[in-house]
Amino acid sequence: MPTDIEIARAATLQPIAAIAAKAGIPVEALSPYGKFIAKIDPHALPDSGDKPDGKLILVTAISPTPAGEGKTTTTVGLGDGLSRIGKRAMIALREPSLGPSFGMKGGAAGGGYAQVVPMEQINLHFTGDFHAITSAHNLLAAMIDNHIYWGNGLDLDTRHVALRRVMDMNDRALRQVVSSLGGPGNGFPREDGFDITVASEVMAIFCLAQGAADLEARLGRIVVGRTRDKRLVSAADIKATGAMSVLLKDALMPNLVQTLEGTPAFVHGGPFANIAHGCNSVIATQTALKLADYVVTEAGFGADLGAEKFFDIKCRKAGLKPAAAVVVATVRALKMHGGVARDALGREDLKALEAGLSNLARHIVNIRKFGVPPIVAINHFAGDTAAEHALIHHFCRNHLGVETVICRHWAEGGAGAEELARKVAALADDDEADFTPLYPTSMPLRQKLETIAREIYGAGGVSVDPKLEARFAELEAAGFGELPVCVAKTQYSFAADPTLRGAPSGHIVPLRELRLSAGAGFVVAICGDIMTMPGLPREPAAERIHIDAQGYIEGLF
Amino acid sequence: MPTDIEIARAATLQPIAAIAAKAGIPVEALSPYGKFIAKIDPHALPDSGDKPDGKLILVTAISPTPAGEGKTTTTVGLGDGLSRIGKRAMIALREPSLGPSFGMKGGAAGGGYAQVVPMEQINLHFTGDFHAITSAHNLLAAMIDNHIYWGNGLDLDTRHVALRRVMDMNDRALRQVVSSLGGPGNGFPREDGFDITVASEVMAIFCLAQGAADLEARLGRIVVGRTRDKRLVSAADIKATGAMSVLLKDALMPNLVQTLEGTPAFVHGGPFANIAHGCNSVIATQTALKLADYVVTEAGFGADLGAEKFFDIKCRKAGLKPAAAVVVATVRALKMHGGVARDALGREDLKALEAGLSNLARHIVNIRKFGVPPIVAINHFAGDTAAEHALIHHFCRNHLGVETVICRHWAEGGAGAEELARKVAALADDDEADFTPLYPTSMPLRQKLETIAREIYGAGGVSVDPKLEARFAELEAAGFGELPVCVAKTQYSFAADPTLRGAPSGHIVPLRELRLSAGAGFVVAICGDIMTMPGLPREPAAERIHIDAQGYIEGLF
Repeated sequence: MPTDIEIARAATLQPIAAIAAKAGIPVEALSPYGKFIAKIDPHALPDSGDKPDGKLILVTAISPTPAGEGKTTTTVGLGDGLSRIGKRAMIALREPSLGPSFGMKGGAAGGGYAQVVPMEQINLHFTGDFHAITSAHNLLAAMIDNHIYWGNGLDLDTRHVALRRVMDMNDRALRQVVSSLGGPGNGFPREDGFDITVASEVMAIFCLAQGAADLEARLGRIVVGRTRDKRLVSAADIKATGAMSVLLKDALMPNLVQTLEGTPAFVHGGPFANIAHGCNSVIATQTALKLADYVVTEAGFGADLGAEKFFDIKCRKAGLKPAAAVVVATVRALKMHGGVARDALGREDLKALEAGLSNLARHIVNIRKFGVPPIVAINHFAGDTAAEHALIHHFCRNHLGVETVICRHWAEGGAGAEELARKVAALADDDEADFTPLYPTSMPLRQKLETIAREIYGAGGVSVDPKLEARFAELEAAGFGELPVCVAKTQYSFAADPTLRGAPSGHIVPLRELRLSAGAGFVVAICGDIMTMPGLPREPAAERIHIDAQGYIEGLF
Repeated sequence: MPTDIEIARAATLQPIAAIAAKAGIPVEALSPYGKFIAKIDPHALPDSGDKPDGKLILVTAISPTPAGEGKTTTTVGLGDGLSRIGKRAMIALREPSLGPSFGMKGGAAGGGYAQVVPMEQINLHFTGDFHAITSAHNLLAAMIDNHIYWGNGLDLDTRHVALRRVMDMNDRALRQVVSSLGGPGNGFPREDGFDITVASEVMAIFCLAQGAADLEARLGRIVVGRTRDKRLVSAADIKATGAMSVLLKDALMPNLVQTLEGTPAFVHGGPFANIAHGCNSVIATQTALKLADYVVTEAGFGADLGAEKFFDIKCRKAGLKPAAAVVVATVRALKMHGGVARDALGREDLKALEAGLSNLARHIVNIRKFGVPPIVAINHFAGDTAAEHALIHHFCRNHLGVETVICRHWAEGGAGAEELARKVAALADDDEADFTPLYPTSMPLRQKLETIAREIYGAGGVSVDPKLEARFAELEAAGFGELPVCVAKTQYSFAADPTLRGAPSGHIVPLRELRLSAGAGFVVAICGDIMTMPGLPREPAAERIHIDAQGYIEGLF
């Protein structure tokens, strides 16, 4: 099997206007970026008339393990499978973050014969959306310190500036800094730091905004700090909102690309799935639903984080009604959940597999709590055995009442996902779904967190530091009690302890911090160690990345 | 007269493929960015066969004053004027920096009826080149700290890391920081800081590179710091060069846009004119020379800095042979050089004008030292009087032997610069130019600086701190003695004191610091206070910038 990059390079791409035409997008709505990428102006699309919105299909997964699940490849494969069986399908994915590409080798545009292309551009600067978000965020940061410098009319408490700066780079040296050093001309020294751009609240806002006006209103609500008498200070108070909107104006248009098989795909936005909600932009999803009959989209991490936030934050806020959810698993990953070490995954182990199915089972039960019908996609690996596949089939049918499909899109493209496509389309067409969020917005914040912990994580409860009790009360009093809660915890376990594989129960979720993302419209509950600025490894991929003698990029994928 | 943005918006732009066709660029060489911008792949251009390179015309200016000169508008107007008189002309300009747009109101894409368009995109993210340069620079910075973190095999002295970080933002809080705080997991705390992206050595390298291989070789030569025993450590030692090249791969292609009158224009690269050389990219200039018969380009600041560096650094290194130089002046600015206060510029003042002509005269004499024939363009302002124009004409003809042309491109577009176009074309066609740099590369560094100071600035000499004597010797010993010297001093005067208008003589230029830009290929001699990270003013333009109800950007220009 050739490598991802070899497959991508060997593909003959269709001009982006042809892909747009296939999706029903007129050429007037296209703003091309090179030959194979275009931004789409949603306002230039024809009125979709009586066409009902397409069916929204979420691709999520079991709790991730080092063995890999293949959520993005399954999203792409399913889209191609739907196209192959004659459905009008589109895909809506997140944009990859630039920084991490230089740490560990590996792109984020699918793999094997299930990729979105052109992969180099998508994985590098693409259409510059993340750079625009970085600029908008850092303009706000510069205006805050500038406000303080020129007299601090808003009386900001410099010990409590909530907005850090951002950079789309893995750079641990910037996690914690002291800024404004060097004398009076450089301002008032204070503690500061940088997050990676995907952790920016501006990124979360960008992905939840329903249009330019909503974007600007949300930007204005970002809480940048507080005064010494604890009044909150917002980005609107700093008068940064208009300029930030200007920086984000073009970025807000969804990016159209294609899969290797020519299925139209929006790749747009990409917030972190820990301290943010981890889904592509609402604008891209809504635009795709107007155009296609089936829209396949993806959420970050496992279903406990990604699907829960997709439902409780993105779908609730944007009024989306998902029709079905595909839960991706692999035999290898299930065996890891059952206790097998990474170097022993090549051997058949039905006992461990059965134990590991507890993880899948919990996610299936959880998804049903949102009124969305699930289906299981087993992403096939060469070492899988027939007995292992049979065990999963029987367990899912007998114990969970859910269908499983073996998928071979990685090796075979859309042809390898045709069965999945047929079953997913049938499930969505059944109109079985009756989407409801897990909790009402009226529920107090603390109870929302308890509900997620008990209902989704199988926890016995949440431990809250006494200091944070007051913080809950403060947020409720300030009028933020109606916001959903966005949990930041490890993606590797239902618990806050990443080593607890399978389906731990009765554990206690330790709340360490509450952060307000008033612009995005959620309260972040940080449970455990969450890294918002990654570092580079001992031998970063960057050391091997280069342009070869033929002008091709090597070492990036 | 409507505002710049009103004029730009009222214009009917030609599709970028039509502009490309006019310049002889085939559609295969175009990579569009929206409808009116494209990147050009120089390798996809047809062999220009027997066509000799076009004539290269530099637009430079007297020492800038708050009254304004209009160098960019004159560059655009001259290009349009040449087109109007039937010449095959192109323009090559620098890209504007994003950060400063949010400080003081005003774009950098010309003005009045002499603009390059689409002005909003050009002044904002454009094709993302500056973002790519920022990413490449900061990747190197992250890899340096990562190298130290993982054992510091190169034995870098953390007190002497020479590479700062960059951001395309006016943010004084980042000028001086302490990084890697917060404990062992975040690295070894050290002093650090940010420059604005246009001050990055990567920017200077990008603009001097003659192709991808040269770019990579130059990036590898960046000196990032030294060991405790004073061995220099380079970007190649850090193994960052390949990945940096990958980040800059697309950016390296020149950006094609158009003037309001449809003259093709490359807008590409934009290094600072103080600590770097201040010209657009060599690749854009060379590509334009292959395509057009006349290429009009611009250098930063006044001719003492911009033209000197254009000749001694850019032209010398790239083997360019300029055919003529246009020195832009205004009656108002000349009167300021003659001692008139800004609020009194509206009154005719022949005596002050005559005094101020000393500044123009020095620049004319200087340009002739490079063997390039000059011509003076007086950028017309409404308050100018006939007597003032006559005085300039007579002075230039009688004392300098140089022609002057009154230009009205700002108010009239190319029609207002037709006379200038005819005279410049005639001057260039005379083949009078015999370009030679001011000094040979073999001259010792200190003597190069003395030569520039005496010959160009009219200085009596250079004062060198005894510590810096050793630094000169160190650079010569390390093999950097052959590099040209890039002087960073105030642009407002021939002297290092910005208040000395006109043509001061016998002053002493105080050398404060020597910095090695080994990748760009010059030694920076810092003379006076040079700011490499601007701040925002008390009421930044950003506070008024917004998207209006019709979706137009307001407040930026």
